[in-house]
Amino acid sequence: MVDIATRVHNHNWRIDPIVRSLIDTDFYKLLMCQSVFRNKPDTSVTFSLINRSKSVRLAELIDEGELREQLDHVRSLSLSRGESTWLRGNTFYGKRQMFRPDFMEWFEALRLPDYHLEKRDGQYELTFEGTWPEVMLWEIPALAVLMELRSRAFLKNMGKFELEVLYARAMARVWEKVERLRALPALKLADFGTRRRHGFLWQDWCVQALQEGLGDKFIGTSNCRIAMRRDIEAIGTNAHELPMVYAALANNDAELAQAPYQVLADWHEEHDGNLRVMLPDTYGTAGFLKNAPDWLASWTGIRIDSGDPATGAETAIQWWQERGEDPSEKLVIFSDGLDVAEIEKLYAQFHGRVKVSFGWGTMLTNDFRGLVPGDGLAPFSMVCKAISANGRPTVKLSDNANKAMGPAEEIARYKRVFGVGEQQAAEIFV
Amino acid sequence: MVDIATRVHNHNWRIDPIVRSLIDTDFYKLLMCQSVFRNKPDTSVTFSLINRSKSVRLAELIDEGELREQLDHVRSLSLSRGESTWLRGNTFYGKRQMFRPDFMEWFEALRLPDYHLEKRDGQYELTFEGTWPEVMLWEIPALAVLMELRSRAFLKNMGKFELEVLYARAMARVWEKVERLRALPALKLADFGTRRRHGFLWQDWCVQALQEGLGDKFIGTSNCRIAMRRDIEAIGTNAHELPMVYAALANNDAELAQAPYQVLADWHEEHDGNLRVMLPDTYGTAGFLKNAPDWLASWTGIRIDSGDPATGAETAIQWWQERGEDPSEKLVIFSDGLDVAEIEKLYAQFHGRVKVSFGWGTMLTNDFRGLVPGDGLAPFSMVCKAISANGRPTVKLSDNANKAMGPAEEIARYKRVFGVGEQQAAEIFV
Repeated sequence: MVDIATRVHNHNWRIDPIVRSLIDTDFYKLLMCQSVFRNKPDTSVTFSLINRSKSVRLAELIDEGELREQLDHVRSLSLSRGESTWLRGNTFYGKRQMFRPDFMEWFEALRLPDYHLEKRDGQYELTFEGTWPEVMLWEIPALAVLMELRSRAFLKNMGKFELEVLYARAMARVWEKVERLRALPALKLADFGTRRRHGFLWQDWCVQALQEGLGDKFIGTSNCRIAMRRDIEAIGTNAHELPMVYAALANNDAELAQAPYQVLADWHEEHDGNLRVMLPDTYGTAGFLKNAPDWLASWTGIRIDSGDPATGAETAIQWWQERGEDPSEKLVIFSDGLDVAEIEKLYAQFHGRVKVSFGWGTMLTNDFRGLVPGDGLAPFSMVCKAISANGRPTVKLSDNANKAMGPAEEIARYKRVFGVGEQQAAEIFV
Repeated sequence: MVDIATRVHNHNWRIDPIVRSLIDTDFYKLLMCQSVFRNKPDTSVTFSLINRSKSVRLAELIDEGELREQLDHVRSLSLSRGESTWLRGNTFYGKRQMFRPDFMEWFEALRLPDYHLEKRDGQYELTFEGTWPEVMLWEIPALAVLMELRSRAFLKNMGKFELEVLYARAMARVWEKVERLRALPALKLADFGTRRRHGFLWQDWCVQALQEGLGDKFIGTSNCRIAMRRDIEAIGTNAHELPMVYAALANNDAELAQAPYQVLADWHEEHDGNLRVMLPDTYGTAGFLKNAPDWLASWTGIRIDSGDPATGAETAIQWWQERGEDPSEKLVIFSDGLDVAEIEKLYAQFHGRVKVSFGWGTMLTNDFRGLVPGDGLAPFSMVCKAISANGRPTVKLSDNANKAMGPAEEIARYKRVFGVGEQQAAEIFV
């Protein structure tokens, strides 16, 4: 029977919104937002979209009017009563009331600030300015909107059956991956694929495939909206933006050298257990660990997000041993550009030596490589980053020279302050 | 929004019926039924299910209670008003009122006769007895019920995502075939896949895939229900049961030798144009053509349904030339165990020399080979045939010794009467 009400409802949509909820975002953005709201609420920041895949000429693929409609729609969103209830009442990482009442009141009243959009050289320049807690929440929806509009631009030229077969092939591919992964007996894996997903519905399908196919090996999703909808764990800790902004705010080299540790000191006060996971690569993993204060060695784990992941994990294991910690009690989360082959390899190398966990992103939620002529649905590398704080440029080095960002003279200064020497440069796919 | 009415309706189904309409059958069954209703209405026949794939032990796979429920449901069916209107009012093969009022009145009142079901040696013995016009309509629903119950027996042990991925893979496979076929510029192809389909919904999907993917190259479906539902041509002419029963009714060898031509003489009176398509292989194509009356050479075409198809078509071309006919004006329909590779090969060999057309069956609507462990969804070879008429056994020889059926002494007699010598034996897949 025809569902007339749904049809009529659909007719009345002005647009088909890509992001329909303020919590259709990564859990760690909310954790970080609360931390920033507490520790640096008045910092002025600028976030900017950066498409590292210059060959994907977004301004030629995506209509500016459609893009503005989607971004305007995101600005119209506010936390729903059910979402607020879920955030206030749910248990995250075993803890009730993770989100404090003062933060929730602020969040309930929040609308995202304005954006600035221009076309240049076939790309969109999209920037967001304002106070840090507000602007930072643009990152994930901005990426998701651009990713999905680019998918839609391609999909709208396809027929009904081509579409059905496209998704049939993509589903078969995801399921083959799931079948390979479930052969790993002690696997722990989470969906980290919100920001570069093919689309919301596709991410939601992928999460259900992991639920059904991996059972207990699937530990949750970074996406709060999907975690709420599917009644599963929301997963995530913290990201590069914290040390990047803290570092930009430093008034001298001494403060700069301490900035990454100051981030974690603030985090240490707020969180314990599995939320005490450090991200050491912002200004080079080796130097970060060498100069780290002793209390950091007691933290639960580490997230490896750039450079050769096996090298990063071996470095961390050696560091824990030097600091008198038992690596087998420590958590290592791999999250950089993973696909099944890398997960299998890293699992084989580290399972048993440390507690291994995987945050699987783009190759879970957007592996449409090779499925259409011209590969117009293949994922590409786009980020949305803090580029300045209180008028000062931010810098990121990471463990991959190709991921470095910031003004050249500032990069040189950061390399000197953090003692970063020669770095490997690896191609960035996603 | 939840479609409550549909849900409640579904809750109230006693069973989930496999065959929901008396016209969920092949068009040629209705054409033949009308011919039989006119020419041989009082003939008593027995039809029997024959599973040529002995390794598929249907009685161990399919619950007898479920099978009886489905067969009983088929017996409860009668022609709906809309179906009757479609049969009476539609144009078939360019002709209005293909079905005569006396036949339609009889059909509107029809319920299928009883069945006899027993288990023996891991198989079901399923037979139907009664007058020919009634019993013959059991063939397609009986096959479709057994085929789909065997699919369902396997599918019920699969999870939601395994199912989704199974169909995703099957869809991708059908679409790859469609993409290969549409490269043939003057292709004419029909769906002949009702009897050994994976299931009704799947056949309906395959038909839509052909509609979308092949456009004008897709000329229609043998399934009346789907032709009506999708507003496309119903396709089909006549089958082996006519000469088999006519032959069994013959009182001596002279009448037997004439029986196949008597079938076509009756058909000649009723039909013209594209419905004048002979099926020459029941008792050997070579002898049939050699002894055929001259008026048969004027017929529109021939259907090649056993033996090596290229040989059969070359034999027909040579025969037309001997009888002074222009083969390029003649229609050759290939319909035996086709898949894409055979279609491509036959098209390359015969396109331009004759009008080529393809009736694509099992490998269209049931190619689930290799998609599940143990290949429990692979199609298998099952038929439902007239085994006796007015108490006398029927015989079929065909152009493949492995397809011969009937008592040994009768097979020997038929071979003598029809001058059939040594025959090739080819493996039967479907």
